[in-house]
Amino acid sequence: MSVPLTIALDAMGGDHGPEIVISGASLSLIHHPDLSFLLFGNEQSISAQLKSHPNVAGRSRIIHTEIAVPMDAKPSQALRKGRWKSSMWLAIEAVKKGEASAIVSAGNTGALMAMSKFCLHALPEIERPAIAAIWPTVDNECIVLDVGANVGADAGQLFSFALMGAAMARALMGIDRPKVGLLNVGVEEIKGLEEIRKASTMLRETELPFEYHGFVEGDDVGQGTVDVVVTEGFSGNIALKTAEGTAKQIGQYLRAAMTRSWLSRIGAFLAQDAFKALKDKMDPRHLNGGIFLGLNGISIKSHGNTDAIGFASAIDLGYDMAKSELVSRITNDLRTFHAAPELQQQRVS
Amino acid sequence: MSVPLTIALDAMGGDHGPEIVISGASLSLIHHPDLSFLLFGNEQSISAQLKSHPNVAGRSRIIHTEIAVPMDAKPSQALRKGRWKSSMWLAIEAVKKGEASAIVSAGNTGALMAMSKFCLHALPEIERPAIAAIWPTVDNECIVLDVGANVGADAGQLFSFALMGAAMARALMGIDRPKVGLLNVGVEEIKGLEEIRKASTMLRETELPFEYHGFVEGDDVGQGTVDVVVTEGFSGNIALKTAEGTAKQIGQYLRAAMTRSWLSRIGAFLAQDAFKALKDKMDPRHLNGGIFLGLNGISIKSHGNTDAIGFASAIDLGYDMAKSELVSRITNDLRTFHAAPELQQQRVS
Repeated sequence: MSVPLTIALDAMGGDHGPEIVISGASLSLIHHPDLSFLLFGNEQSISAQLKSHPNVAGRSRIIHTEIAVPMDAKPSQALRKGRWKSSMWLAIEAVKKGEASAIVSAGNTGALMAMSKFCLHALPEIERPAIAAIWPTVDNECIVLDVGANVGADAGQLFSFALMGAAMARALMGIDRPKVGLLNVGVEEIKGLEEIRKASTMLRETELPFEYHGFVEGDDVGQGTVDVVVTEGFSGNIALKTAEGTAKQIGQYLRAAMTRSWLSRIGAFLAQDAFKALKDKMDPRHLNGGIFLGLNGISIKSHGNTDAIGFASAIDLGYDMAKSELVSRITNDLRTFHAAPELQQQRVS
Repeated sequence: MSVPLTIALDAMGGDHGPEIVISGASLSLIHHPDLSFLLFGNEQSISAQLKSHPNVAGRSRIIHTEIAVPMDAKPSQALRKGRWKSSMWLAIEAVKKGEASAIVSAGNTGALMAMSKFCLHALPEIERPAIAAIWPTVDNECIVLDVGANVGADAGQLFSFALMGAAMARALMGIDRPKVGLLNVGVEEIKGLEEIRKASTMLRETELPFEYHGFVEGDDVGQGTVDVVVTEGFSGNIALKTAEGTAKQIGQYLRAAMTRSWLSRIGAFLAQDAFKALKDKMDPRHLNGGIFLGLNGISIKSHGNTDAIGFASAIDLGYDMAKSELVSRITNDLRTFHAAPELQQQRVS
């Protein structure tokens, strides 16, 4: 496919605004020279940054906006003050109008979620969109959802998350029949929540475009036991943050250990290539970007405090998702595959 | 305090039975020479192991049992077949009778929980006991509960978990006023579950023997932001397993990185002391042992597949908890400190 692809960027989002957004776009253009951008935000600030990045200047159009959504605004405030006119809203609207294939913002997560839902609408089969994250595994990556769009999920919602996550795995990783697992606790006497058990039954008894693996536990995620891990947003968010925190903590241990004696310092110096490889592998910037699944369009949230490399990863994710026509895949799967009627019944009862 | 202390051991629990239990006891005796043991299980198997560990033989008594609770038995089965007569039950009962100050088992978690509740009973103020784990932090350790005794918890239960966890922190870490946090998700628009918000209000408005820090997120746990992290058992179990899995995963990355070239191999060789220190720091055996809090007695669960070092850690934990009179501290705190009446009211409504 060589159809040129346009991505809408909220240039005012994130802790660093246009500086990181434009330099991220510049890096992403090196990966994908066919990209072009719509840049929403303060024209003066954006133009100033474009001077240092002529490759972006040559492939983008600025849409000036007076209003930017503050990082600490509540979603309701953001909607009230920023709807129809903020850089975030207009960037999302560009996707709705078909002027862009995806929107990327490093702005306020709650506001982005609320505006994306309000503007793009959920797909007809979807009660609740989810945020999917890409999680590094020992050999590869896996997709985890929901990592925080909502608290709690019933069996039917977990079932939809599985369909959407699997469609994303097929699109992003090119796996024909991804393995999907439901996150649960392994302690025998509790066996997890009722809704998770119900979702498991629905997944087991329905013909699906993926392989349902069954339950997985917290330590399976990073081991790559499955390609897609499905859970509700509270535990998903806690798992994601806990893994990030643990990685950071071990990095701190490692640095402390490597500077504890002159011998270990020499060792660390000799093994510096190995440490660089390790650092790369653990670099959260390479997998930056949560994607809102279940909407009529691709909306991607970058970490607010990322740098150009991280923001470029989020743009690259938007590019890949748009190129592989994620939304139509999901729409199609949601229409084609659904829980058997008797299971749907269970859900209602 | 030099009162000799007796610990009851379920010699048949765990993947390796008496071999690990007795060699673990032997190690723990080196740490605490005043310890003595009651060993519950098959006399012949235990005696065979005692031959290699004369220090344990000299400070223990065997109570022969014909029945051991299988690792895969359901709690209800275990209770039906093992009550009054299994090694696990009798070891717990020794605590009830005052013959031992704590029970340690590497056996079936569900069975141990069910039997401990059934035999020792919950403290009068406690609706649901919790499992507390000790979690390594950057500089120290913290206590996390519940890591899997129950799924879900209401505000009042979370409040009790906070009291029990703080009492444990005072007993184990000698902190006068531990900092306690409630695990929550940070995404603005969802702000966590109703019961967590309610628990937060209760904790904020009650006079307490600890400092209530407020909400913490998954990445705060390992950073040591607080001394006690309170959450319900589903997310607590997932967080714990995710952290263990992430640590394992990074260990795998590190090994792969350090063997990728001859230079990195030499570097790793020179820095071997540093790697040993790192390995020690990350060694899960040093913090082995979940403790059931909220019961009339100390019951400790060791990992089922641990080795002698890990099992010794679990015994050491039991020793420390018994010496510091954890149960009477908790009982006292539960009686003295409780949510203000108007908050209790909220809870009922």
